[in-house]
Amino acid sequence: MELDGAALTARLVDIPSVSGEEGPLADAIERALRPLAHLAVSRDGNTVVARTGLGRPERVILAGHVDTVPEAGNLPARAEGSRLYGCGTSDMKSGVAVQLRLAAHLVTPSRDVTYVFYDCEEVAAERNGLLRLSRTHPELLAGDFAVLMEPTEGLIEGGCQGTLRAEVVAEGKRAHTARAWMGRNAIHEAAGILEVLRGYTPREPVVDGLRYREGLNAVAVRGGVAGNVVPDECVVTVNYRFAPDRDGRQAEDFVRSLLAAWPVTVIDVAEGARPGLGHPAAASFVAAVGAGLESPRAKLGWTDVARFAALGIPAVNYGPGLPELAHSAGEYVETAAIAECESRLRSWLAG
Amino acid sequence: MELDGAALTARLVDIPSVSGEEGPLADAIERALRPLAHLAVSRDGNTVVARTGLGRPERVILAGHVDTVPEAGNLPARAEGSRLYGCGTSDMKSGVAVQLRLAAHLVTPSRDVTYVFYDCEEVAAERNGLLRLSRTHPELLAGDFAVLMEPTEGLIEGGCQGTLRAEVVAEGKRAHTARAWMGRNAIHEAAGILEVLRGYTPREPVVDGLRYREGLNAVAVRGGVAGNVVPDECVVTVNYRFAPDRDGRQAEDFVRSLLAAWPVTVIDVAEGARPGLGHPAAASFVAAVGAGLESPRAKLGWTDVARFAALGIPAVNYGPGLPELAHSAGEYVETAAIAECESRLRSWLAG
Repeated sequence: MELDGAALTARLVDIPSVSGEEGPLADAIERALRPLAHLAVSRDGNTVVARTGLGRPERVILAGHVDTVPEAGNLPARAEGSRLYGCGTSDMKSGVAVQLRLAAHLVTPSRDVTYVFYDCEEVAAERNGLLRLSRTHPELLAGDFAVLMEPTEGLIEGGCQGTLRAEVVAEGKRAHTARAWMGRNAIHEAAGILEVLRGYTPREPVVDGLRYREGLNAVAVRGGVAGNVVPDECVVTVNYRFAPDRDGRQAEDFVRSLLAAWPVTVIDVAEGARPGLGHPAAASFVAAVGAGLESPRAKLGWTDVARFAALGIPAVNYGPGLPELAHSAGEYVETAAIAECESRLRSWLAG
Repeated sequence: MELDGAALTARLVDIPSVSGEEGPLADAIERALRPLAHLAVSRDGNTVVARTGLGRPERVILAGHVDTVPEAGNLPARAEGSRLYGCGTSDMKSGVAVQLRLAAHLVTPSRDVTYVFYDCEEVAAERNGLLRLSRTHPELLAGDFAVLMEPTEGLIEGGCQGTLRAEVVAEGKRAHTARAWMGRNAIHEAAGILEVLRGYTPREPVVDGLRYREGLNAVAVRGGVAGNVVPDECVVTVNYRFAPDRDGRQAEDFVRSLLAAWPVTVIDVAEGARPGLGHPAAASFVAAVGAGLESPRAKLGWTDVARFAALGIPAVNYGPGLPELAHSAGEYVETAAIAECESRLRSWLAG
């Protein structure tokens, strides 16, 4: 018996797949796709790729991760009114269900389609299945345009902002607090760093027609030696979310110049991605899928669209889930949104 | 063979007595004092008290702690030129050596003398031997004036400053850093706290003729939830060193009013002690001992003189050790200072 999108989502949710333990779910996906004659199926670890081979002039990629964060007492899936509750309903097994149904039904799509179901998105970047696949089998990721089916509440979100973390150090000189004037208090000195952060006005650049909104935040501060010691070091960790008109190097230069009075050590940088909506495949996607929706909006958080951008493939985020509920115990998806998402993608890709 | 002050200091240093392990040293001190007919000797745990009972109109107390911080590869004691190196040479076995020699030789002092050798000064206040003795045998601490033989490089240091620690909390609202405007950054908010501390001008009040110098310092700061979260709390721990014209309650009121914009929680307070140099016994001490020295100066750090003050006994710090070397691996004492200290006290107390 064929399952509709909501029922299929529930079935997928009920196969637990916390990052690193995606084997059973990847097996089930592979089993479902292997019999389909119009698809060439590959497997790399717990990542499954299925591709049409119709010789179309364009190839698009529909990608979704199959892993979830650890469950929070929210399994198995539970339907209630218009909603389906459970771990991964929004992030992002509802998107995976749409992928699977399109893969099964679109035998002769108007564009060749590559369906990517990958593992380990919710954990450290070096474990990410999409990253691994781009190294082991880059040919499987060839394409003109990609749709990442992350939760966007059914709106098109273009590109993504980059993210940089850095440590900024205020230095001082130790002394006993009873003779504080013999030292210099590094924590007091850090007030200057925090004032710069507090005074920062976020840029809101328009990139390829979408307005981004940057952010520069202290995400950690630590300092102190003992209860009677003037501390000699205070470290402020900052997180800069930068619009995709800047690359990582420019983001680093910006942070260094803004905080030039203190030593800055960059901990990590992840490049953003321009929305790339000018590409013909993207434009047709927006025309077909975005009809009746508000205009595409900028994706502010970092997602794997940046990996596609790094491969030279324009990409957008588009999925039925609710992003604000991701990783929460009360996670749910509106079941109507699953059918809506599938319907819009089907009309874009129908042959 | 009788040991001089330096040799006796070396002997004491070579009996390790880290806080909590003072038994062997307390035993040795008790053994040395018990045979002396002019002294009544008591023992409470590892605290030893020896008292003359001449019926003099005044009684003075010479007190010193027998414990040390953990050794730092600086045992046994080692003489080099004019110095004696080793754990506890300055803080404060040279002072204890002076106490022991005075106890042995001053058979008929001009004032009755109580010699207190106590344990656990270098650790948490509730373990302090002087505090314990004041509860179990307060009669042994009766007296008109006390000299605490902490290292003061041979100068008289009057009273001590109090110390207060408090936590000051900056509050915010969590949000994802990619949508920071939905939250409020508590670490940025803490800039206000640090600005207040940075802008604080220390009071320098003159109390009973001695000039104190206060201090208000952040000694710790902590905040942060995760690398991608706008934090909702930042806690600054402050240490206020207050002159003895203020009591703990006034110190607390001051900190609360200065930082009225934020919640303040007081963690601990230790009262200071006025120098009390107006007392006749204190005045005669300054006249006899301070001759040729610079005038008595204010003690800025907190010491057990505050315990005597709490008992209503004026007290000063005076000892041969070097305070800046206390707790350091390179700790030493100038051997000439030991003899000098003994000589001055002897001339004050000689019958």
